[in-house]
Amino acid sequence: MTIDFKQDILAPVATDFAAMDKLINEGISSKVALVMSVSKHVVEAGGKRMRPIMCLLAAHICEEPNLVNAQKLAAIIEMLHTATLVHDDVVDESGLRRGRPTANATWNNQTAVLVGDFLISRAFDLLVDLNNMVLLKDFSTGTCEIAEGEVLQLQAQHQPDTDEATYLSIIHGKTSRLFELATEGAAILAGKHEYREPLRLFAGHFGNAFQIIDDILDYTSDAETLGKNIGDDLMEGKPTLPLISALQNTTGEEHAIVRKSIATGGIADLDRVIEIVNSSGALDYCRQRAHEETTSALNALQQLPESDYRQALHNLAQLALHRIQ
Amino acid sequence: MTIDFKQDILAPVATDFAAMDKLINEGISSKVALVMSVSKHVVEAGGKRMRPIMCLLAAHICEEPNLVNAQKLAAIIEMLHTATLVHDDVVDESGLRRGRPTANATWNNQTAVLVGDFLISRAFDLLVDLNNMVLLKDFSTGTCEIAEGEVLQLQAQHQPDTDEATYLSIIHGKTSRLFELATEGAAILAGKHEYREPLRLFAGHFGNAFQIIDDILDYTSDAETLGKNIGDDLMEGKPTLPLISALQNTTGEEHAIVRKSIATGGIADLDRVIEIVNSSGALDYCRQRAHEETTSALNALQQLPESDYRQALHNLAQLALHRIQ
Repeated sequence: MTIDFKQDILAPVATDFAAMDKLINEGISSKVALVMSVSKHVVEAGGKRMRPIMCLLAAHICEEPNLVNAQKLAAIIEMLHTATLVHDDVVDESGLRRGRPTANATWNNQTAVLVGDFLISRAFDLLVDLNNMVLLKDFSTGTCEIAEGEVLQLQAQHQPDTDEATYLSIIHGKTSRLFELATEGAAILAGKHEYREPLRLFAGHFGNAFQIIDDILDYTSDAETLGKNIGDDLMEGKPTLPLISALQNTTGEEHAIVRKSIATGGIADLDRVIEIVNSSGALDYCRQRAHEETTSALNALQQLPESDYRQALHNLAQLALHRIQ
Repeated sequence: MTIDFKQDILAPVATDFAAMDKLINEGISSKVALVMSVSKHVVEAGGKRMRPIMCLLAAHICEEPNLVNAQKLAAIIEMLHTATLVHDDVVDESGLRRGRPTANATWNNQTAVLVGDFLISRAFDLLVDLNNMVLLKDFSTGTCEIAEGEVLQLQAQHQPDTDEATYLSIIHGKTSRLFELATEGAAILAGKHEYREPLRLFAGHFGNAFQIIDDILDYTSDAETLGKNIGDDLMEGKPTLPLISALQNTTGEEHAIVRKSIATGGIADLDRVIEIVNSSGALDYCRQRAHEETTSALNALQQLPESDYRQALHNLAQLALHRIQ
């Protein structure tokens, strides 16, 4: 079965999705013209809005009685995501994201840092309006963990001794934690506390799978695969799972080349490193781990009642796997 | 009377101040080593901690029954302040702050942006623990306005047509708004809603005076005045009140020189601009405005019961004025 994003994932929440889009535009409105134009630019550069869609699907699974609140929560999730992208682009000195000039490139680093701060503050401001202390605590703790995960990633840069456990901490912070907020947050908002754990487990494992797949693509994708350039992670000396696994599986010269590539960064040895992550079985191991995380995610879904919404989350996890098949 | 910061401002809340310092150190603790060391570095580089002291004094004026909560609020204020300093230093590409290397200079921009994000998130996390929805709303709205003020300042850079009203919006956002959160927040926390307005008015007007004084010093301070380099604002083409007023008061060549200095930035004409802001009466006008704002601040204090704490806030406003006398 070929999964179609619009039809098999977005469709059940298409109405809420459109309403959410409006709420984002209202949320980023500001009397300061520059805040507005930069926010609009970065929000429009957003991709498929996978995170708010997860939030809306989770809200329906939890039979949220007030869908406007769910739409607001989804908008908040997307604003937090956008804020981290804006700051990430400053951090990575990126000029392009999904083929569009980044905020730091279009304006400058200053504007990007400050508009990112505005988006974080506005997201919290909208969250406070939902008037739910449990939700607020979940989000305030969660955003701390997200920032810590991002710093941990910086700390691990150029460190060939980074192990898989540290890698998992990094990807939990930088990717999975916001997925968790999106789905568990919907359960908290709906007052369906018995669904919190399965929805969090789904999102956490799916987030891990999603990031592992992304990290695999950095060593396997071709120019036609949108939005990802081969060798980006190696360039920055990021010890992602393909390299961690390659170090585990190799000795001698091959081991030394991978270590050195992490330590120094740069893509001088890219072809050789790609060969090693393939021949050492590292990519096979990564694919296996992505499948395991996806299985755990899908198992968690089984604890929730069957519905089109649950099926859409299932489809989303399957679609992500297709990128490495 | 000579006002001594320690004796005449800090002394009444010295015990709470020490407790707050511990709370800040607990607040910035993280399992990520790099988060810890950067946070510690930037928090220790803090100055007199004027903002949390204002918060503690306000808490006592409001007869806060739970002083630990007031100490927590003061710690949150200082953490928010530190976060904005860390991001400001990235924005301004500063290498030094108060004679110490900045986070971006000691580590790099990436680390500074992300640790700033962590500090904002952690401050909100601690705020949620205070379990007060009115306080949360005040802070979430306030931090949006702070970010907007900072962006407005960027937007006004190199714009010689910036008027005094826009300047006041900028300094309200970048300086006075956090002062307001510090004092009005203490009233909200203590449940003394009748003191909210006088404490906010005091802080808002004092913040305006404080920033106008700072902007005057950029054209008058000598090398012995700590922490402020003459010409910094002109270098960046910032249309602060001395220049806005100089443009109001001049025509012909003098007017053209000031306009050009704002438009282009740089300190090629610094000596000439200093001469103009002096001779045109611009600095006199700024000093008058600083006095007016201070008077408004002190008037607001009169609505509060007399006490050592109120006197300390009075002393603080007076001490700031001494910098331009």
